[in-house]
Amino acid sequence: MSLKEIGEFGFIERISRGCLIRPDGVVTAIGDDAAALQAEANRLLLVTTDLLVERVHFLREATSGFNLGYKSLAVNLSDIAAMGGTAREAFISIGIPDDCPLAFLDDLYRGMQHLAAAFRVNILGGDTTGSKQDLIINVVVTGTVDPQEMLLRSGARVGDIIYSTGTLGDSRAGLHLILNKIRADSPQLQALFDAHVLPKPCLREGRFLAASGGVHAAIDVSDGLSSDLGHILRASGVGARLFALQMPVSSQLQAFCARFGFDPVDYALAGGEDYTLLFAADRNEAARIGEQYRAAFGQPLYRLGEITDTGRIELAGPDNQLQDITPTGWDHFKTK
Amino acid sequence: MSLKEIGEFGFIERISRGCLIRPDGVVTAIGDDAAALQAEANRLLLVTTDLLVERVHFLREATSGFNLGYKSLAVNLSDIAAMGGTAREAFISIGIPDDCPLAFLDDLYRGMQHLAAAFRVNILGGDTTGSKQDLIINVVVTGTVDPQEMLLRSGARVGDIIYSTGTLGDSRAGLHLILNKIRADSPQLQALFDAHVLPKPCLREGRFLAASGGVHAAIDVSDGLSSDLGHILRASGVGARLFALQMPVSSQLQAFCARFGFDPVDYALAGGEDYTLLFAADRNEAARIGEQYRAAFGQPLYRLGEITDTGRIELAGPDNQLQDITPTGWDHFKTK
Repeated sequence: MSLKEIGEFGFIERISRGCLIRPDGVVTAIGDDAAALQAEANRLLLVTTDLLVERVHFLREATSGFNLGYKSLAVNLSDIAAMGGTAREAFISIGIPDDCPLAFLDDLYRGMQHLAAAFRVNILGGDTTGSKQDLIINVVVTGTVDPQEMLLRSGARVGDIIYSTGTLGDSRAGLHLILNKIRADSPQLQALFDAHVLPKPCLREGRFLAASGGVHAAIDVSDGLSSDLGHILRASGVGARLFALQMPVSSQLQAFCARFGFDPVDYALAGGEDYTLLFAADRNEAARIGEQYRAAFGQPLYRLGEITDTGRIELAGPDNQLQDITPTGWDHFKTK
Repeated sequence: MSLKEIGEFGFIERISRGCLIRPDGVVTAIGDDAAALQAEANRLLLVTTDLLVERVHFLREATSGFNLGYKSLAVNLSDIAAMGGTAREAFISIGIPDDCPLAFLDDLYRGMQHLAAAFRVNILGGDTTGSKQDLIINVVVTGTVDPQEMLLRSGARVGDIIYSTGTLGDSRAGLHLILNKIRADSPQLQALFDAHVLPKPCLREGRFLAASGGVHAAIDVSDGLSSDLGHILRASGVGARLFALQMPVSSQLQAFCARFGFDPVDYALAGGEDYTLLFAADRNEAARIGEQYRAAFGQPLYRLGEITDTGRIELAGPDNQLQDITPTGWDHFKTK
């Protein structure tokens, strides 16, 4: 069966199944001019959106539909996580070229629905249209947050401790495998591949940090540690010192870098797409938050450095020599 | 100056200016991981989204940036209008190919901001990225509506009178001019061109109808009268009879059809992109609503026909002979 045979409205009906997993508060879903939702009292509405374009963000021949659908939603859930929010609804716009098989699209929606169900997020609508050449996916996610708990990029203070909820650089290593068509011939390489294609949005971790009462600023690591930390520093009007010896590098990234001749600290600093949460915590609350986090998630928080008043990012090397590191990361226009 | 010179973040800063025109209730706008908004008590949240792709929805060489920006937002505001809602915030995702000049993009945002300001809609964020070939614009608009007043596609009842808030077919005639490179050499042709490129979202009209207490179902005319009426009929489980002699055809469409040899009733029935509101009103309230509408807007409502129990759309010709008309309209996949 092809998209032409079932048509736009047949396709919409097909992808609508399994999209409403939390009906409470949903007044109209797919099938009217707009979705209508009950607002939650005393909570802020959060809205985030990400556009993914074939040949810029993904290669259709190098991804499964499932992984593409999963990741398209994951990167938006990650933005809600970085605000300390609860994700509620997703709206998917898709531009489909003629040569895109229906089976790929079914698989793509399965990937989205799988992740949506895991975090109790409804997929409530969107737009379905054609595209001349590239597959296009725009995802919008709404969420809610207690206004007293919301985590912003601004708010970091001199002396705060900088943490990441996970290791950094794995995703970039996974991308290297994909772009260079290197087979994931070991569990370690497979873990790096998975880190890139199936990143876990840290929604529960974000909620924990928001409620912890000691986190001053947060962001998710999408562009890379130095670039995303740069956003916090600019928004907060502060600087930071990172410690090379404290960069959270997974054993699989260590093995990858040893095998292919890369510097793991480089990967951690400029990797991107890790979707861990990067945050600045009050130094008097940091130990408590770290202990409670470990108790809640069975994982440590990774301490990377601290907030300074320099306005720059310094990297302290193993010999404690300071090096100024300019934020590097992905700029969609400059890096072309 | 080019996009490469100012970079992604320079571009975001550039387009952010003039986007926040109604700061009340906006906690964070452009520049964090998500926008954060105060929810309005006792009102439903509306969300709608539309994806516009170059070579499918527009030809870059045939449109100004201003008109493209205006229309991208207008079609979404129209969806909020069709729910009887008040539009509140817009979120713009844009995928920009290398060869798209910064001046075109500045013009595009001017078009959006012009319309946003006219309806007091904030542009609060979105996503800015590259595209290999086609310019891509995804617009999300949120709105609010009193739950007692919301207009759905469902709810039309047998005996209801069917109305349009404006004439139909002008936009398709304007598209014909553009596609056939016919110069708008008269005020009449210019009016048809404008109807296609600068459609007016009927937000005030939608609010009026929602508050009128006699409108049972509504939709905006995007795909074409027969197609959009079909959506109301399917959602409401009813049929309709339209009267060919009552099709609201503007004098400029009459002149256009006479000059180029088209049937104005065809244009009215299957035109599309008129963005008038099409609605079913209680037959006992219809006269009152029509009078109040004329008093409020200085324009008549156009009576097209009535809701029946047939499940089909019949067109009554000048001789009152009935003809079954299958909804025709734009299906993005079937019509390729």
